[in-house]
Amino acid sequence: MTENSKIAEHISELPLIDHHVHGTLIPDLSRSEFESFLTESSEPIPPWMTQFDSQVGFAVRKYCAPHFDLPEHADADTYWAARARWGSDEIARRLLRTSGISESIVDTGVIETEHSKPSLTTLEEFGTLSAQRVHEVVRLETLLESLADAGVEADALEHAFDAALAAAATTAVGFKSIIAYRYGFDFDPARPHSDEFTAAAQEWLASASAGSFRVSHPVLLRALLWKAVSTGLPVQLHAGFGDADIDLERCNPLLLTPWLRLLPADYSDVMLLHCYPYHREAGYLAQVFSRVYFDVGLAINYSGAASDRVIAESLELAPFSKVLFSTDAWGLPELHSIGAALWRRGMTRVLSHLVNDGDWSLTDAKRVASMTGRDNAHRVYRLPNS
Amino acid sequence: MTENSKIAEHISELPLIDHHVHGTLIPDLSRSEFESFLTESSEPIPPWMTQFDSQVGFAVRKYCAPHFDLPEHADADTYWAARARWGSDEIARRLLRTSGISESIVDTGVIETEHSKPSLTTLEEFGTLSAQRVHEVVRLETLLESLADAGVEADALEHAFDAALAAAATTAVGFKSIIAYRYGFDFDPARPHSDEFTAAAQEWLASASAGSFRVSHPVLLRALLWKAVSTGLPVQLHAGFGDADIDLERCNPLLLTPWLRLLPADYSDVMLLHCYPYHREAGYLAQVFSRVYFDVGLAINYSGAASDRVIAESLELAPFSKVLFSTDAWGLPELHSIGAALWRRGMTRVLSHLVNDGDWSLTDAKRVASMTGRDNAHRVYRLPNS
Amino acid sequence: MTENSKIAEHISELPLIDHHVHGTLIPDLSRSEFESFLTESSEPIPPWMTQFDSQVGFAVRKYCAPHFDLPEHADADTYWAARARWGSDEIARRLLRTSGISESIVDTGVIETEHSKPSLTTLEEFGTLSAQRVHEVVRLETLLESLADAGVEADALEHAFDAALAAAATTAVGFKSIIAYRYGFDFDPARPHSDEFTAAAQEWLASASAGSFRVSHPVLLRALLWKAVSTGLPVQLHAGFGDADIDLERCNPLLLTPWLRLLPADYSDVMLLHCYPYHREAGYLAQVFSRVYFDVGLAINYSGAASDRVIAESLELAPFSKVLFSTDAWGLPELHSIGAALWRRGMTRVLSHLVNDGDWSLTDAKRVASMTGRDNAHRVYRLPNS
Repeated sequence: MTENSKIAEHISELPLIDHHVHGTLIPDLSRSEFESFLTESSEPIPPWMTQFDSQVGFAVRKYCAPHFDLPEHADADTYWAARARWGSDEIARRLLRTSGISESIVDTGVIETEHSKPSLTTLEEFGTLSAQRVHEVVRLETLLESLADAGVEADALEHAFDAALAAAATTAVGFKSIIAYRYGFDFDPARPHSDEFTAAAQEWLASASAGSFRVSHPVLLRALLWKAVSTGLPVQLHAGFGDADIDLERCNPLLLTPWLRLLPADYSDVMLLHCYPYHREAGYLAQVFSRVYFDVGLAINYSGAASDRVIAESLELAPFSKVLFSTDAWGLPELHSIGAALWRRGMTRVLSHLVNDGDWSLTDAKRVASMTGRDNAHRVYRLPNS
Repeated sequence: MTENSKIAEHISELPLIDHHVHGTLIPDLSRSEFESFLTESSEPIPPWMTQFDSQVGFAVRKYCAPHFDLPEHADADTYWAARARWGSDEIARRLLRTSGISESIVDTGVIETEHSKPSLTTLEEFGTLSAQRVHEVVRLETLLESLADAGVEADALEHAFDAALAAAATTAVGFKSIIAYRYGFDFDPARPHSDEFTAAAQEWLASASAGSFRVSHPVLLRALLWKAVSTGLPVQLHAGFGDADIDLERCNPLLLTPWLRLLPADYSDVMLLHCYPYHREAGYLAQVFSRVYFDVGLAINYSGAASDRVIAESLELAPFSKVLFSTDAWGLPELHSIGAALWRRGMTRVLSHLVNDGDWSLTDAKRVASMTGRDNAHRVYRLPNS
Repeated sequence: MTENSKIAEHISELPLIDHHVHGTLIPDLSRSEFESFLTESSEPIPPWMTQFDSQVGFAVRKYCAPHFDLPEHADADTYWAARARWGSDEIARRLLRTSGISESIVDTGVIETEHSKPSLTTLEEFGTLSAQRVHEVVRLETLLESLADAGVEADALEHAFDAALAAAATTAVGFKSIIAYRYGFDFDPARPHSDEFTAAAQEWLASASAGSFRVSHPVLLRALLWKAVSTGLPVQLHAGFGDADIDLERCNPLLLTPWLRLLPADYSDVMLLHCYPYHREAGYLAQVFSRVYFDVGLAINYSGAASDRVIAESLELAPFSKVLFSTDAWGLPELHSIGAALWRRGMTRVLSHLVNDGDWSLTDAKRVASMTGRDNAHRVYRLPNS
């Protein structure tokens, strides 16, 4: 067995922990609905194009077609016709159970889209469909908004949030902040006082239209973040690219530097998600701040066959104990499937080159694959042993 | 025939559309004048260096030497001696007609340099020399400055510009803005009102020295841009690196995000030119905004043999229907020649790897080459069929 | 002999000039002290990790293990045990004398760390241990702080600094500024007047606690920089990543653009150090400003086996006469050793690819290796011939 094939075998047999992922869609989809989940764009797909003509679309055709008894690279129409023969449950089972992901840490916050609120599997449903062990990450903004929805008033909101956070911490393995989406990382790094929280809550609730509580007040967003990192549970932060709502240059994780400097030593680990095109910057932060971790999850799916370069770039400055695997898949089980397949493919290529060129030993390459694919997540999120 | 050679053959036979290019110089050149066109620097070339010692210089020696009956990589002195035997017309014919570019969309605005205004071929002259079908892109700032040069006064300027723009739209296939050069992309995204235009025009004309109308007033620059995108014709924007006049970090196309969000759905497509080192950022914009397109034109020439990496990076996030080919060549027909040769070389390598590794099918690779090299430009600029 | 092996031979025999480096530590080290020099982090190393598990750690195990009679890739414990058998002098001799670096330009300013001030070799000691010819670069901030330490008062400080700078210029081959660390590159580009200097000196000295003069006043930092560039000797600027003290986005060398535009033509060359992840931006500056040079020194060591990509990216826009070799090693002679080894390895791979693919001639590849590894530094720093 050559060293290449030993690396490939090791990685193909590694049960992955997907440290940031979402559920799959419950309803059956039309083709245009399906294609709208192959892009971060929320604009209508122009008639002269198909979202299949992209790296993510090509990856779906390569990796998922065989799960519908088609050859790799089956064309988009053929793929769609084969997939459309099945219900969403069967599609999810075929794609999720063959991914080689053994555990998933699922963000259960609702993602807003141009479409009506999508109907996603619950944590339990996702666990059943995927036959994976599942863990929950609770989204901070959703938690606050649910309290406002329930009629909690401004002067009671902080206390109610603290209680809800404490309750969530008894079952969740971590929290997630989307301050990058709702504001940007250029927020005042200082921890807000209670009176600032309540004043901000008053402003927010007064300005929100009834029944539509979407928090974007920077004081509230950063107060939530501070509260989350004081729990000691890992806190995920969306960083880098996403949809057209973000100002991408304000999602550069370097802008978190002043805030990271303020965190007390016994506070939570900070998990930077995706980070592209700022993954080199994330690698720097992961080197100099012992509590910073990162992945390039979403970027792997969207760069498809080009993701080996992104993966290689994620292995420059950061210690190997600080890099994690995720798919950030949501909605389409195709995204869970290709996320795992592309990570395995990219890591196999990057590590095979290093070993073949004599730069790394085979033992080290296998060890780094295990660390990033599984062991780091297991340690940071303090997951139970299987 | 191997798959590699099938890709190479397909790409070598593809008649390219160069969607952003300039004319060639009419006068014969001295060697130092020649070398000054191999760099974006406008400083004198220091005596201890030659601009041939760069990726662009090495590419000229590789690709252009055979057109003067020299072996590839002929040294700089030999290349210069062989080239200097010919007049500028013959040089242009040799290099332009062998480029495999069948159509060019030519920016006819004058480019200012440290030198006196260069004497460039007209659209028609360039078409004759190159034996290509040519189309025109009209530079917005040049159009406004020509009206000021002609004596139009401030309170009549907007009306005169609107008329000139409408007239240009009857023959041009698009417009171009150099707001990145003259100001930066961090402009107020709102559309200026007419009274703001006129007030700005008064300030501008009052401060301009007679006979030297160079518009850099941000209100005027963005008013021109808004007027251009309301025509429905594609509007090109210089983005990313250029000469020492720019503040490169203010040419990051991400700074256009607030403006892009304001564009009505029936407005023009926006063509981001060059974009390096922000081409990954451009790929993000091209994914999330259906009207955004981009190329890495100028960066291909200047990174020379390293351009396959830049090309590969341009094929990460963007749908393949949103990436175009250009040379951004100007002045030296060598730049037109290497622009096409390097794009073919880079695409052949990138696509061959993808096909050889099993990531893409051969059919897909050939289709993506055709889309980016020709079909996307043909569709967006609504070019007539040949 | 194949072309690959000709390139490898040429590069392996090239006596390098390390244009930016520091001395080595004099005391013997504990393992945790040793590991603290394998990272830019100043936080304690968490118990669940070792800094050996990183690109820089793997590179140490590959390149340095044989100098202690171990096989390449010896594990961390084995490496440490073998190294710990020797005193710091013997370790330094083994690693420095086998690096193939013939001359070093040494930054003799003290580097502050979390540890007490480290005891580093002097210029002469480093020369003796390494058997290299050594030259000195004087750190501007250290020079000013030493005057304050010596009791010079605010109104005499500028005059004293001018005299100290002039004295240093008689023996040093250049100066170094760490304005990136102490403030950022977003400083007012104008040259401060004498009265501004003295007012800033008064503020600084009044606020400094006795015996702890650490200059971070932006007026003083930029005044020092202006004074240094007026000497005509090359001035080095830390750029890009470093430790957690920096705001990395403020160390983007593009922010120097307004200042670079102000420099008179007869002023010093500007040497941008490291630059990662902004090395492409540095390449742009090196193309458009004839006095700008750069290296990717520190990034080569920290990206280890991934550094060939960083090296390749450093050879895109910049003319080859503007790129230099450095290790930026400090403290551990391992860093000097791997800095040279990784540069040779990376250049060999990058250039071999270019020659094998027919993009460059063998002659050109060897010439560019010599320029970047030695000749450019020799010319810019006006070093005496050996």
